[in-house]
Amino acid sequence: MFNGVHEDRLREECGVIGIFNRDEKHLAKQLYYGLYALQHRGQESAGIATTDGKQTRCHKGMGLVPEVFNEEDLKRLPGTIGIGHVRYSTAGESQAVNAQPLVAKYRGGSIALAHNGNLVNAALLRKKLEEDGVIFQTTIDSEVIVNLIARYSRDGIVEAIERTMDLIKGAYALVMMTDKSLIGVRDPLGLRPLCLGKKDEGYVLASESCALETIGATLIRDIEPGEMVLINGDQVESHRIAKEKSRASCIFEYVYFARPDSQIDGVHVYEARIETGKMLAKEHPVEADIVIAVPDSSIAAALGYSKASGIPFVEGLIKNRYVGRTFIQPDQATREAAVNLKLSPVRSNIQGKRIILVDDSIVRGTTSQRIVRMLKNAGAKEVHMRISSPPVAYSCYFGIDTPDREKLVGATHTVDEICRKIGADSLRYISVEGLVQATGLPKEHFCLACFNGRYPIEVPESSNEKMFKRWEGDGNA
Amino acid sequence: MFNGVHEDRLREECGVIGIFNRDEKHLAKQLYYGLYALQHRGQESAGIATTDGKQTRCHKGMGLVPEVFNEEDLKRLPGTIGIGHVRYSTAGESQAVNAQPLVAKYRGGSIALAHNGNLVNAALLRKKLEEDGVIFQTTIDSEVIVNLIARYSRDGIVEAIERTMDLIKGAYALVMMTDKSLIGVRDPLGLRPLCLGKKDEGYVLASESCALETIGATLIRDIEPGEMVLINGDQVESHRIAKEKSRASCIFEYVYFARPDSQIDGVHVYEARIETGKMLAKEHPVEADIVIAVPDSSIAAALGYSKASGIPFVEGLIKNRYVGRTFIQPDQATREAAVNLKLSPVRSNIQGKRIILVDDSIVRGTTSQRIVRMLKNAGAKEVHMRISSPPVAYSCYFGIDTPDREKLVGATHTVDEICRKIGADSLRYISVEGLVQATGLPKEHFCLACFNGRYPIEVPESSNEKMFKRWEGDGNA
Amino acid sequence: MFNGVHEDRLREECGVIGIFNRDEKHLAKQLYYGLYALQHRGQESAGIATTDGKQTRCHKGMGLVPEVFNEEDLKRLPGTIGIGHVRYSTAGESQAVNAQPLVAKYRGGSIALAHNGNLVNAALLRKKLEEDGVIFQTTIDSEVIVNLIARYSRDGIVEAIERTMDLIKGAYALVMMTDKSLIGVRDPLGLRPLCLGKKDEGYVLASESCALETIGATLIRDIEPGEMVLINGDQVESHRIAKEKSRASCIFEYVYFARPDSQIDGVHVYEARIETGKMLAKEHPVEADIVIAVPDSSIAAALGYSKASGIPFVEGLIKNRYVGRTFIQPDQATREAAVNLKLSPVRSNIQGKRIILVDDSIVRGTTSQRIVRMLKNAGAKEVHMRISSPPVAYSCYFGIDTPDREKLVGATHTVDEICRKIGADSLRYISVEGLVQATGLPKEHFCLACFNGRYPIEVPESSNEKMFKRWEGDGNA
Amino acid sequence: MFNGVHEDRLREECGVIGIFNRDEKHLAKQLYYGLYALQHRGQESAGIATTDGKQTRCHKGMGLVPEVFNEEDLKRLPGTIGIGHVRYSTAGESQAVNAQPLVAKYRGGSIALAHNGNLVNAALLRKKLEEDGVIFQTTIDSEVIVNLIARYSRDGIVEAIERTMDLIKGAYALVMMTDKSLIGVRDPLGLRPLCLGKKDEGYVLASESCALETIGATLIRDIEPGEMVLINGDQVESHRIAKEKSRASCIFEYVYFARPDSQIDGVHVYEARIETGKMLAKEHPVEADIVIAVPDSSIAAALGYSKASGIPFVEGLIKNRYVGRTFIQPDQATREAAVNLKLSPVRSNIQGKRIILVDDSIVRGTTSQRIVRMLKNAGAKEVHMRISSPPVAYSCYFGIDTPDREKLVGATHTVDEICRKIGADSLRYISVEGLVQATGLPKEHFCLACFNGRYPIEVPESSNEKMFKRWEGDGNA
Repeated sequence: MFNGVHEDRLREECGVIGIFNRDEKHLAKQLYYGLYALQHRGQESAGIATTDGKQTRCHKGMGLVPEVFNEEDLKRLPGTIGIGHVRYSTAGESQAVNAQPLVAKYRGGSIALAHNGNLVNAALLRKKLEEDGVIFQTTIDSEVIVNLIARYSRDGIVEAIERTMDLIKGAYALVMMTDKSLIGVRDPLGLRPLCLGKKDEGYVLASESCALETIGATLIRDIEPGEMVLINGDQVESHRIAKEKSRASCIFEYVYFARPDSQIDGVHVYEARIETGKMLAKEHPVEADIVIAVPDSSIAAALGYSKASGIPFVEGLIKNRYVGRTFIQPDQATREAAVNLKLSPVRSNIQGKRIILVDDSIVRGTTSQRIVRMLKNAGAKEVHMRISSPPVAYSCYFGIDTPDREKLVGATHTVDEICRKIGADSLRYISVEGLVQATGLPKEHFCLACFNGRYPIEVPESSNEKMFKRWEGDGNA
Repeated sequence: MFNGVHEDRLREECGVIGIFNRDEKHLAKQLYYGLYALQHRGQESAGIATTDGKQTRCHKGMGLVPEVFNEEDLKRLPGTIGIGHVRYSTAGESQAVNAQPLVAKYRGGSIALAHNGNLVNAALLRKKLEEDGVIFQTTIDSEVIVNLIARYSRDGIVEAIERTMDLIKGAYALVMMTDKSLIGVRDPLGLRPLCLGKKDEGYVLASESCALETIGATLIRDIEPGEMVLINGDQVESHRIAKEKSRASCIFEYVYFARPDSQIDGVHVYEARIETGKMLAKEHPVEADIVIAVPDSSIAAALGYSKASGIPFVEGLIKNRYVGRTFIQPDQATREAAVNLKLSPVRSNIQGKRIILVDDSIVRGTTSQRIVRMLKNAGAKEVHMRISSPPVAYSCYFGIDTPDREKLVGATHTVDEICRKIGADSLRYISVEGLVQATGLPKEHFCLACFNGRYPIEVPESSNEKMFKRWEGDGNA
Repeated sequence: MFNGVHEDRLREECGVIGIFNRDEKHLAKQLYYGLYALQHRGQESAGIATTDGKQTRCHKGMGLVPEVFNEEDLKRLPGTIGIGHVRYSTAGESQAVNAQPLVAKYRGGSIALAHNGNLVNAALLRKKLEEDGVIFQTTIDSEVIVNLIARYSRDGIVEAIERTMDLIKGAYALVMMTDKSLIGVRDPLGLRPLCLGKKDEGYVLASESCALETIGATLIRDIEPGEMVLINGDQVESHRIAKEKSRASCIFEYVYFARPDSQIDGVHVYEARIETGKMLAKEHPVEADIVIAVPDSSIAAALGYSKASGIPFVEGLIKNRYVGRTFIQPDQATREAAVNLKLSPVRSNIQGKRIILVDDSIVRGTTSQRIVRMLKNAGAKEVHMRISSPPVAYSCYFGIDTPDREKLVGATHTVDEICRKIGADSLRYISVEGLVQATGLPKEHFCLACFNGRYPIEVPESSNEKMFKRWEGDGNA
Repeated sequence: MFNGVHEDRLREECGVIGIFNRDEKHLAKQLYYGLYALQHRGQESAGIATTDGKQTRCHKGMGLVPEVFNEEDLKRLPGTIGIGHVRYSTAGESQAVNAQPLVAKYRGGSIALAHNGNLVNAALLRKKLEEDGVIFQTTIDSEVIVNLIARYSRDGIVEAIERTMDLIKGAYALVMMTDKSLIGVRDPLGLRPLCLGKKDEGYVLASESCALETIGATLIRDIEPGEMVLINGDQVESHRIAKEKSRASCIFEYVYFARPDSQIDGVHVYEARIETGKMLAKEHPVEADIVIAVPDSSIAAALGYSKASGIPFVEGLIKNRYVGRTFIQPDQATREAAVNLKLSPVRSNIQGKRIILVDDSIVRGTTSQRIVRMLKNAGAKEVHMRISSPPVAYSCYFGIDTPDREKLVGATHTVDEICRKIGADSLRYISVEGLVQATGLPKEHFCLACFNGRYPIEVPESSNEKMFKRWEGDGNA
């Protein structure tokens, strides 16, 4: 991942934003800054669509927000309603044609859609639509959703979305716009986050509250699971369309996906991370000289661990700020020496020390192995690894990019085996209960499927090609 | 137009190519060179789609063929069947999303389509489809065609295309590909050209025979009006689907659109141009010292005029070879001096001479005016302009970009008025009959609507937004 | 500065590296990674020159290291000796022609030079050389140095450099290469850093030890003030050419210029920063709830303050990782809201808190003002600013980019006035003595001119145009 | 060569321009358009330097004029005096550092220089200067010239240039500028062209008159061999510095280098080309059906041949207008078919015809061979090749890029052998006398060394490395 120290990680697949503001002269620029604040949720493509009520315009492309847009591009996107999208995606689908928002003409005029999440029955729905003579120009779920909405649009957009929500299953935080309205929808389980803010006379929808702050909007509330909000100028209409008995919001938003200054479903992300660190110290204490973090995302948990344990927090690893995409990768001959291109040990802090190394997750284990080795080479006496999430042992089908299950070290190895593999002196993970408790929310609030395999929606074997591929040779799942 | 001396011109809107060749290891490269030979038919966007029977891949973008593709792009386009497209288009629709080929998934698998032409009932068909819940992601006719084919595909592709051809009206030379077949279709009037060639064990379809020669293929024949050819490996199946009583091929291909080394419907383009020059000399002789051409496209007609009149042909205007798109346009202050950035007079040939200036067409008249002035400034004693096409007085709705009718100087001014406007000492156009005779084909072969307003298909006022816009304030049409 | 939270800062002007390694098959790649580790010392241009003993090749350009070089560029730089340079520079001189290394042919063959520092008598020397008929193609001091070396080269390169060092005055860490040797030189006062490392059978010279570690080399020692080292394959020859009674190394390397994992003149940079924080806590205690840092560079000092004071360290400001050069700047209308594009407050940590905000320096004061306001807006009850360097009150003439003296808030305002200006509840700077003590080196080791105006070399008014300009209207200097 | 049908050719190495105009608000733009008109003289790099009397600014880079400059670049080049340069060069020296103009500071202020030509004693002069301690940063002769001028500048620029002209030997058309003056110099033999024009209140110097016309200036006269003109505002001072008994202007300017609409030393280039064609017809008649040209440069000679012989001129080969530098080269497998990517035969004109093919020169013979084969494949009955220059049998040392002598087919083969090699039915070259006569100037006016080996200046074996390399294994030269 671009700018990433850490390539061995789960990855959020998308971020969305929408603005309706009659008085906003800088709509596209606001969307730009909003997307930029959501950049951590997707670095592969970015796009903005706006409408002035008559014409819908769209600009999207591969790359980071500042790479996709220049001032000229933004000037060509006038209007009072607009939506934006950033995306990360698995390699096979990494094509320009799949960039969002998806803009289409339908019976009701223009429609544009930005989607964060993943439908589990998209393949099935595509097949049914194809049998009715529908064509598909992309491989994204959004195209299925827009086709369904267009089909059911005879009685208006609200009705159409309701009927569509009856059919689609899975995770979806949607931001849509027609010629007249901005619409936000969150799936019945609340798998992916979506919040509502106010700016001047207008409204803003966004995946995370940090995007609201960046553009000077104020958080009003989170969209409820199964809720649709329809924004027409200064009016917000709420429709409670579908509701499951329990909710199943993604707990990994708190572990690492969301930006630390965001607030999701009433919980401050940074605070939750501090608490996971404290909980980790309580559950898995160890005698040591210093606590260090894998920067930047694990610093909060490390500070929490330090506070609870009384062992001082120290910067043991420094991130190189200048690593970019164009960086030339070291070849075999220079690789070993090049370990610390992205991450450098602060030798003077490490030498002779017993270290507690706090990281937020282990997926394949490769990065952890390299970091432990780097610390040992820099003179660390002991390295005790503490992970602020439980072992990831199951793939996600709800909008998070996970490797095939057989590549999840948490699925194939015991904790002791992982510890030996990465070369640490000890390795402990926070418990599922500990993690939940750190958020301050009840266990029923969350989807914990990546830890325990209990998927909140049936993940039918026949519905999803991608899934099929992943499940091959995996009897346990 | 890029590299164009001549901005005041009708413009071909597209060129298409398709190849089916099991033995071809360089399919994408062949398509690249073929498109490159068709570059004069469209400089705005270019695209190639290929299939290996399992996966369909596509690469397209804004710009000239060599700007859109590099070696890496071509390597990522393997397969045995492929189609390509180059496009010019009116400003409003000049968007990346409208680049072709259009690739889609439908009930029958994958389908890709490249279209040269223009449907007159596209808006009507779109509306009907939208009423049935269909969405449109582009503004190109190809999307209407693919949707119709998908709808009617239950009984196979041939049946689907037949039913589609029953519905669509207008000009279309189509090259399509499914997972298994390459398909070529020419509209019932034969408005736009399409020919078939053979290369080794495979077949090639292309807008012009010059593309066949460029890749070492041999011209077999032109596709007939209303014919569909289905190519499966070494088999060519012909279906005569629709047939009008008369045909109506575009005569401007001979005047200027086609490359001079192409052969269309049995006629060598270069020969036809020489003949128009001779005819022009016969119809409109004038006493003069030299015959000169507006380079490059009018040289043949000028040589014909010279031959028939006995007045020597001389190079009077030199084209600058290095004008490109990035060229900085002169501002008001430098404009007058900068007339000859693209075209320079050869003063020594012009000074004191009575000149016959041969050009292929006059659309708005602005370029002609500037060229006449340039020649006079360089010392020409007299400038007699001779045009190798009749006055263009009606807009085209069949795939040629023409300005609104009120901007066609041939619609709003008499020949004498035009002559005064451009400052020539005399101005004469070839007659419609003379032009037809020069091609050696019967008058019934051609669409001559841009000269006489007799459209071969009804151009219903209600069917075409674009048309509407153009006809506003134009009582004569 | 690119990626910079902090635009209101002193800026290092250059970083240099040199490698001599007969067995190194990846010389250019090693230089690339080495420069990349030195990127924080200059983001404006980058360059590498190599020689295989017969031909000297050079590639340089404007931009970051990964922007200037691609794999192909590195492949075109073979050889056994090479030098590299990164540069920041004042706007006026920001031209491609001034990028280094400077490569020239002279009587002795080829010579290439990379320079970190600034000569105070360059203008004078240029003038004298010009009077002798010498031409100058750049505005950089390196061209003066190479001309002097060429002049005095009749008796060999060592003699030539000795005579040159007799003439040039100011700050210089030089890495040079001839067809046969790699040469390192440090000015007699040791103003700028330069160190020597060993890799396999070869040697490496670099501005900072972090570049050695990045390429797997081991630090041997720092080059001494006034020393020249001549490296021929596996031999290192030391020449002690010039020696001042005292030295005057730049103390700001420890405050902020150098990378925290570097070691300069025997002192670990990170440790020195921790100590400045502790000293600051001792000198300027204040009652508060939390200690926060301006990320990334002040974290060490903040941790030191936290440790010495017992007040907990917390992340109060989060840096956006994705800010790049192409980022669209907010206009007036969006600016206020956009304060936190680069830096976001972690509201949950700040609200209602009395904060100690640690930063490394204040130059103009503009950024401090904005950060204090951001914290207050996010609910901070009190903001006590603590600066880990004394007030910067004098311009630097030795290789550091400082604004004109009248723009240094430390020169024009008292500490109390600055405190009011930035809106903090209290503001304290570390004392000069405290800073020196934190490094563990004696006061005589350092140049402290930016704090106290006592320049280690006379800065003659007549010798330096740049200086002149700066001193205009400044009676105090 | 870019855009070139014809890769097998001699190549002009440079074009120069200079403007002094107090009233010109668009100086840089004028230079841009002027360079653009001279683009045929060099496509590798382009540069412009301007001065407002206080500061000299320069922008240069690799590529065509419109690729090197955008509007912003031109805006950053204000002033009243400016010079420009386009350059082609041999591969080895194709580096950015060698782009011109060369800008330097010297005792007298700023100086900038643009050079068309080649010194034969540059290496010798470089060596002498290096022995005096001078450094060289490029490999271009201009740097030698500027160093000499700087050395001798104590008594003013005129004196300095005079003394420099005493020392330098070879071909040079120089355009220079100081802070106050624009200067033009032509070598004593007048080897390379340079002319003077007037625009409004200012003056223009240029390699060819076509550059004057492009910017609306009027040709006054050619600079005389050995003349220096010094332009100060509205004053032109002429200094006759050096004069050889005879002159030796390059005759190839008329054959092919210069643009056909230029006038050089009083002769219209286009007229001279027509005359060479007529002379060729007189000297080497042959029975045939048509005369065709290799476009674009041989059209004039072909028209002349046609006129004199009465055999009709026909377009037999069409050039593809869209070939650019980024074009993907055909590999071995597609090469044979791809012959006509750049040049296509007009089959209908060629089939069954006896053809006279007129070309301007044969250097290696490879292109001729391919063209003859292409014509035969297209059905030509006979191909009689007629060349409008005599056999090129000797390398040029005066500013024209020629291959090593052993690669000149005219040096190693008899005409009959060449004819067989290229597969023509007959091959004839114009005689030296015929070519001279066609220009209308006396034989003493010209350098004819490339035909007869009689170099107008001694080409000392020891003075020129490049020459050495070329002369190896060449006993005849």
